[in-house]
Amino acid sequence: MMYNTSAGIVPGKINVHLVPHSHDDVGWLKTVDQYYVGSNNSIQVACVQNVLDSLIPALVADKNRKFIYVEQAITHGFFALLSFDFLLEINGGMCMHDEAAPHYIDMIDQTTLGHRYIKEQFNVTPRIGWQIDPFGHSAVQAYLLSAEVGFDFLFFARIDYQDRAKRINEKTLEVVWRASKSLGSSAQIMTGISPKNYEPPSDNFYFEVGDTSPIVQDDMNLFDYNVPERVNDFVSAAIAQANITRTNHIMWTMGTDFKYQYAHTWFRQMDKFIHYVNQDGRVNALYSTPSMYIDAKYAANESWPLKTDDFFPYADRENAYWTGYFTSRPALKGYVRTMSAYYLAARQLEFFKGRNEVGLSTDSLADALALVQHHDAVSGTEKQHVADDYAKRLSIGYTEAEKCPLLNISYCPPSEVDLSSGKSLVVVVYNPLGWKREDIIRIPVINENVTVKDSKGKVIESQLLPLLKDSMSLRNSYSTAYLGKSTNVTPSYWLAFSASVPPLGFNTYIISSAKQAGYESSHSGMRTVYKSQISQNDTIEVGPGNLKLLYSGKRAKLMRYINSKTSVNKLLEQSYIYYRGDDGSKDLQPSGAYIFRPNGTYPIEPEGQLSFTILRGPLLDEVHQRINPWIYQVTRVYKGKDHAEIEFTVGPIPIDDGIGKEVVTQITSNMISNKTFYTDSSGRDFIERIRDYRKDWNLEVNQPIAGNYYPVNLGIYMKDNSSELSILVDRSVGGSSIADGQLELMLHRRLVADDNRGVSEALNETVCVFDKCEGLTIIGKYYLRIDPVGEAAKWRRSFGQEIYSPFLLAFTEQDGDHWANSHLATYSAMDTTYVLPDNVALITLQELDSGKVLLRLAHLYEIEEDTDLSVMSSVELKKISKVTEMNLSANQERAVMEKKRLVWRVEGSSKEQPTAVRGSPVDPAKLVVELAPMEIRTFVIEFYSERGSFSDALYRRSNLRRKATFSLP
Amino acid sequence: MMYNTSAGIVPGKINVHLVPHSHDDVGWLKTVDQYYVGSNNSIQVACVQNVLDSLIPALVADKNRKFIYVEQAITHGFFALLSFDFLLEINGGMCMHDEAAPHYIDMIDQTTLGHRYIKEQFNVTPRIGWQIDPFGHSAVQAYLLSAEVGFDFLFFARIDYQDRAKRINEKTLEVVWRASKSLGSSAQIMTGISPKNYEPPSDNFYFEVGDTSPIVQDDMNLFDYNVPERVNDFVSAAIAQANITRTNHIMWTMGTDFKYQYAHTWFRQMDKFIHYVNQDGRVNALYSTPSMYIDAKYAANESWPLKTDDFFPYADRENAYWTGYFTSRPALKGYVRTMSAYYLAARQLEFFKGRNEVGLSTDSLADALALVQHHDAVSGTEKQHVADDYAKRLSIGYTEAEKCPLLNISYCPPSEVDLSSGKSLVVVVYNPLGWKREDIIRIPVINENVTVKDSKGKVIESQLLPLLKDSMSLRNSYSTAYLGKSTNVTPSYWLAFSASVPPLGFNTYIISSAKQAGYESSHSGMRTVYKSQISQNDTIEVGPGNLKLLYSGKRAKLMRYINSKTSVNKLLEQSYIYYRGDDGSKDLQPSGAYIFRPNGTYPIEPEGQLSFTILRGPLLDEVHQRINPWIYQVTRVYKGKDHAEIEFTVGPIPIDDGIGKEVVTQITSNMISNKTFYTDSSGRDFIERIRDYRKDWNLEVNQPIAGNYYPVNLGIYMKDNSSELSILVDRSVGGSSIADGQLELMLHRRLVADDNRGVSEALNETVCVFDKCEGLTIIGKYYLRIDPVGEAAKWRRSFGQEIYSPFLLAFTEQDGDHWANSHLATYSAMDTTYVLPDNVALITLQELDSGKVLLRLAHLYEIEEDTDLSVMSSVELKKISKVTEMNLSANQERAVMEKKRLVWRVEGSSKEQPTAVRGSPVDPAKLVVELAPMEIRTFVIEFYSERGSFSDALYRRSNLRRKATFSLP
Repeated sequence: MMYNTSAGIVPGKINVHLVPHSHDDVGWLKTVDQYYVGSNNSIQVACVQNVLDSLIPALVADKNRKFIYVEQAITHGFFALLSFDFLLEINGGMCMHDEAAPHYIDMIDQTTLGHRYIKEQFNVTPRIGWQIDPFGHSAVQAYLLSAEVGFDFLFFARIDYQDRAKRINEKTLEVVWRASKSLGSSAQIMTGISPKNYEPPSDNFYFEVGDTSPIVQDDMNLFDYNVPERVNDFVSAAIAQANITRTNHIMWTMGTDFKYQYAHTWFRQMDKFIHYVNQDGRVNALYSTPSMYIDAKYAANESWPLKTDDFFPYADRENAYWTGYFTSRPALKGYVRTMSAYYLAARQLEFFKGRNEVGLSTDSLADALALVQHHDAVSGTEKQHVADDYAKRLSIGYTEAEKCPLLNISYCPPSEVDLSSGKSLVVVVYNPLGWKREDIIRIPVINENVTVKDSKGKVIESQLLPLLKDSMSLRNSYSTAYLGKSTNVTPSYWLAFSASVPPLGFNTYIISSAKQAGYESSHSGMRTVYKSQISQNDTIEVGPGNLKLLYSGKRAKLMRYINSKTSVNKLLEQSYIYYRGDDGSKDLQPSGAYIFRPNGTYPIEPEGQLSFTILRGPLLDEVHQRINPWIYQVTRVYKGKDHAEIEFTVGPIPIDDGIGKEVVTQITSNMISNKTFYTDSSGRDFIERIRDYRKDWNLEVNQPIAGNYYPVNLGIYMKDNSSELSILVDRSVGGSSIADGQLELMLHRRLVADDNRGVSEALNETVCVFDKCEGLTIIGKYYLRIDPVGEAAKWRRSFGQEIYSPFLLAFTEQDGDHWANSHLATYSAMDTTYVLPDNVALITLQELDSGKVLLRLAHLYEIEEDTDLSVMSSVELKKISKVTEMNLSANQERAVMEKKRLVWRVEGSSKEQPTAVRGSPVDPAKLVVELAPMEIRTFVIEFYSERGSFSDALYRRSNLRRKATFSLP
Repeated sequence: MMYNTSAGIVPGKINVHLVPHSHDDVGWLKTVDQYYVGSNNSIQVACVQNVLDSLIPALVADKNRKFIYVEQAITHGFFALLSFDFLLEINGGMCMHDEAAPHYIDMIDQTTLGHRYIKEQFNVTPRIGWQIDPFGHSAVQAYLLSAEVGFDFLFFARIDYQDRAKRINEKTLEVVWRASKSLGSSAQIMTGISPKNYEPPSDNFYFEVGDTSPIVQDDMNLFDYNVPERVNDFVSAAIAQANITRTNHIMWTMGTDFKYQYAHTWFRQMDKFIHYVNQDGRVNALYSTPSMYIDAKYAANESWPLKTDDFFPYADRENAYWTGYFTSRPALKGYVRTMSAYYLAARQLEFFKGRNEVGLSTDSLADALALVQHHDAVSGTEKQHVADDYAKRLSIGYTEAEKCPLLNISYCPPSEVDLSSGKSLVVVVYNPLGWKREDIIRIPVINENVTVKDSKGKVIESQLLPLLKDSMSLRNSYSTAYLGKSTNVTPSYWLAFSASVPPLGFNTYIISSAKQAGYESSHSGMRTVYKSQISQNDTIEVGPGNLKLLYSGKRAKLMRYINSKTSVNKLLEQSYIYYRGDDGSKDLQPSGAYIFRPNGTYPIEPEGQLSFTILRGPLLDEVHQRINPWIYQVTRVYKGKDHAEIEFTVGPIPIDDGIGKEVVTQITSNMISNKTFYTDSSGRDFIERIRDYRKDWNLEVNQPIAGNYYPVNLGIYMKDNSSELSILVDRSVGGSSIADGQLELMLHRRLVADDNRGVSEALNETVCVFDKCEGLTIIGKYYLRIDPVGEAAKWRRSFGQEIYSPFLLAFTEQDGDHWANSHLATYSAMDTTYVLPDNVALITLQELDSGKVLLRLAHLYEIEEDTDLSVMSSVELKKISKVTEMNLSANQERAVMEKKRLVWRVEGSSKEQPTAVRGSPVDPAKLVVELAPMEIRTFVIEFYSERGSFSDALYRRSNLRRKATFSLP
């Protein structure tokens, strides 16, 4: 029997766009490779090879059939065999990235990797954002990763159940989403939200091998002929959906994740439905794609409701807020951020060096980083063995170029050389930012008698801080866990000194035995160790510079924040609590990897004076607090910095009592914050959050804590009439303001129950040394500052960039002055007279395979964010032969994208903004790039010389990096 | 990556024959149609269309790949698209028939239907018997349905676990099976028994979509590369199997039932195994088929152990004897037998009439009957809704030609016409046997004053028997259940008279009102109703002829069997018991649809005199016994018959007490049977059974009752020095002799637990009238006779044939003598001077589509079974232009089959028998067919005239059957 599947759109009828689709997560319950080859099926039946192998014959068999698939990472190379454009029209990134945990730079990188691959291999430019699975949707996804990429449509499924109910009721599931205050209508995106999920419209239309939906039985020679009933089912479902949808066009997402293992089973039934439903004639059914659907929508010339801000947080039902995953697997989230920063810097160095002339390649790291942006990867919602796989891939990517990945737990063999033997340690410090920069570097050393010289041979101020007991035992334990052996050398001190490095450049410091270098250990100011003396009623002042933190010695607690330069003087407390994770005994909704479901708040009181140690020195003061047996905290106040740095060590969280715990730090002031606080969107725009309130609907509050949590990638702040209190983070976490004047961050979670969203594991991370396993301990940092109101953005934006891109350190040894004499000691890729403007960051500098260079510049400020810096800025390019402005993902010219972009009408003219300010096209003669607030501009540039001027200097001394080892601070 | 799958057989190595296969039961948990289209997947994931759709591309993709599939019924027509011979080489019947419940005639018919279809459509002749799933294996399957069909090999998997263990130990899993005493080595078959089951050799080699076996991960670019491990797994499994197998050839059955839903998933892995295992080189792996395998075995020129008798009963583990299904669904088994008989007769009539000249066709019934021989159909091991589907198909097949299917529960509208209105009832009685025959016919009538005339108008003796209350209430209830309405006319009597019909012919009887016919109701001997008078201490003698049954009036029980003609005089008791079906509480092995697991024996005592009624008359006496509220029994002794007929009505079996019950009738004598009894093999050969003993191994007895049960299709008997006690049955049942001198039949079973073999339903048949459901009540018969020793075979064989082929009745009405004057009243298709020899039956007479005729003649006796009749017999054919002897399934000429048959050597020359006696080839000049004991010979014959001489007479009066309605007694 041949079925007529040739139906196109029929005007005047309800058109049911059947969009066959699936996606196979690039890791979730199984690893990406296991999904691909179909192994480990006892965990989950999923095999991408089956999908691909069965799909192509099914598509070849009937040219009317369609199929869309996302996540290039898992299908890489396959489509080379045969290309159907529609297969590639959606997303096109390496994965369907999460929208809460990834940083926008990672989102751009992974999308660019996929988009350029598809463009080069198949000359296809994806048109549709297809974020059907992520658990909430960020403003950055809308305006950057959709509009700026050139998409005409963004489709997803997961929004708050209350929001969805209202939208269904008001026919507002399809909206124009204007997510950027700064870029306004110039970066808005037509957005479709599924009425239910990304699956067929009712339980009756699933046709995977083994699914139980009634097939269309149209053989009259057999029993159970059911064509009339099934056509009725179809028409009823179509009419029901049409009743909540504008225009005559509705989309049915025919598939779900991990399906089409045998594609034929779906197409056979859809063939029949199209044939018989169209014979029936009440509605029109057709094979379609999101492109065909959206073009039909556009042709209807309808006006659409406007949506601003974002779609966080997401609850799929009462008491089920998906806000736990903002923090789940904080170590993985931290590792991803570290690797992300390393990748940014490494690409710069790779470019300077030239991709083709050196073994070092960032490709594996690029792939691993792209993969881990997946919505069940950095999100922390995968099974443990899959999380391990992601970490392994990052580690391999990193190791392909470098060694020494464990510096972040104070283990770094090159710096632990015994300098008394006469050797010196050479530290090359690379600054990936476009600004000159000073920062304190800390290196573990064995000897007490060390001295630090700058690249000119001048001894500079340094400070020794003793490694305390808790830190040592953690170091030993984790060295054994991850390296399989304990360390044979034990450092005694952290050596701290201030490094100053030019933009996109490096500087060199030499560390030697003080004796050998001719200095005595008593040399004034070089290194100082203090231990605080605490008296019962003391107020203890900490900080060698402008910033002073006042502690109560009696309570061993922070009391007050004073900055003499800005005249800020504020009561300030900092504390830890934990939420008891609900175990599901009430209503089967426990707290888990996805969901934050607190069941009680429990303060964690410090243990008192004995656990309170202060180290003072010329460069910084450190306050060490052992909060309880499993929380350790170091607060650092630097002489040259006006913020406090808090390093927390949390874990193993005890669960012997059978109770899962979600550990939170709270910063409490007496500010009148009026329920309002601000969190960033994917590390970029700050969005106003109001406690127990949603702009789009009348919130029914059932989870007053979990329902007010938001993802924090860059920072969180609150303000009142006089000041702003900002916290910046070193990785993605969840945060909120549950009480006025207070901010909180969830730092770590360890739970005992699965939250019934598929992962089927309690989030209970452990680390094993030999056979002994205990809960994972994490170390992280956050940064705290109070500014006069209106003056805080500068720190958040500039220092935020420094957090994202720390100095990159390389170590080597020298005998005598050999190294210093034979190597360039300091360098900047920029003209010495030039730095980037304060409001512009270089977020991509990467040599492409073609030899061309990808350059991305980002304005760091929103409109009205800072009096001085929320203005048009400009960057001058030099020695460049050709510059082509591209869309964000660099798979098409910006001008082409703008020209073909669909322009959607918005309901109500009053909502039309004035056209946003944007930088002008680059004049090839002047080569000046203008950047308006929040603008990111992407260029492919070509140089006159083979290697380009950025790297000319470095190129002449290419032996430098051959011996160097780049490391991560 | 291309895999080298071209390996053939490699001498000197272990050759692992990978035989990709599956079978989709033609009904089990789902109906045959549901399996085909893949509906009702919530019960079971199975879709034959998926198998077929995915298989052909997989086979086309690599010509080395193979696949075998059975059960033509479910794939009918599909292979027309594309034929791979190997797809069709196994079985080739419409189904993989059961071997316990089907009658050999049904087995032949269904195999013939499939074989001729395959031959005509694809010119393929299957070579291999592939009975992998049936639950035990019959001698008839071996020598008739394998050897006589022309197979070179029979393969199956299910044998007793103790037997298998011994065979594994002794390397005797492959045997020459010489199953017929009479035909000996002339009908033996090489037989292979799987070492475990019909699945891959270990749990590690299953590759269905969703299976969890480790795939061969051979992509070095991905993690988890496992080629060496998987090759080792393969080699280990091969060596393990080679160690228990003769020759270098082992077969791996790569698949199982309902698999290859997406065939590619299997072939992809097998491709890899063949490629890498052969690269490894320790063993040789190849795509193969049973044909390739067996040819390789044959080439090894090995001698093989000999096996005789059969493989019943089957236990898959301790306490798990699959002997319950011998009786499961006795109503379905009865319906199948009734339809089988009707089909045999209907084909004769169809041939007489000519297939093309009449609307009546037996094709649907042929299909339905073929289908229901399936090993989860007549076996009674399907789900209830599937059993209903089989019954529906039989009913439709029957209804396509005829009406009135409910005569067997005393509902037959044509015969219930009120004859007082002046009309007469015309009964045309057809005799499908090749012998002249007399039998008592019973018809329900309303009036008391009726008379019966023969075709010459002569009034013949008749007898009225009142319809008793119990029978009436059952009739009303079942009429409502099956017809949806209660009957509007209530018959009062059974009218009994003796009909005499020539071979392959009919006779006509006219029933009219006695008054109208001029006879008074007092007319002597015409009809008589007696009610017995019972006195307390009486011995009551029952029976108007030679046979007398003596009852104790006091005990209301049978006491003695006396035949004055044969001088048999035996103590004889008959009783009912029930076995309590085990509920699985001990060891999770309940009694169920498959398994008989008794847990206690409970006698059922008759209720006493009030339930004991005797009806006497000139033709027969009836003893009515209400044994208990749910067992009713009528024993009939006919004047002209030397056996007793017992009609039992059993049900609804009560299970209100939560206890399943398996109802058994026991016949107890004082014979010294010495543990020995005999049961037929599929209705043909009788096989000696010895209680608690197996010929092939030392039986460890753990189920002294269930382990001694055997299937009974024709009958069961025992003997001692003086006499033989035989019981013949009207359908397939389970039977045994649990005590010396005693035989028993299990008549009905109703159980409360599933026996964990997949059907997932307790065997609890119910019948619903409107919303009220109660347990199924069945009515059946068995026949009992005691003969002097050595003289019993004649009755068993001749009367057995009469039971299988009862008279076929057609009814019409006439006013006055209209019918009699216009129609031929009596007829025989045979020359009036000829009947078939007493030891030969005509088992097939069927017009083929080609106009040719299929004729099968069966010798009914085994060697040494009867002094007079176990001899060569001959049948003369006349007026035939051409006769071609065929193999049993008529898909090849017998001579061709014999010529190409492989001749296997048997171990030990002493086991070689003298060549069996067989009939000579038919001389075309003489047209005499010789038949040796147990020989069945199959011919395609052509006639000189268009219609053939058999039907000449009938053809001239073809209007006869236009008005007649054929019915079933």
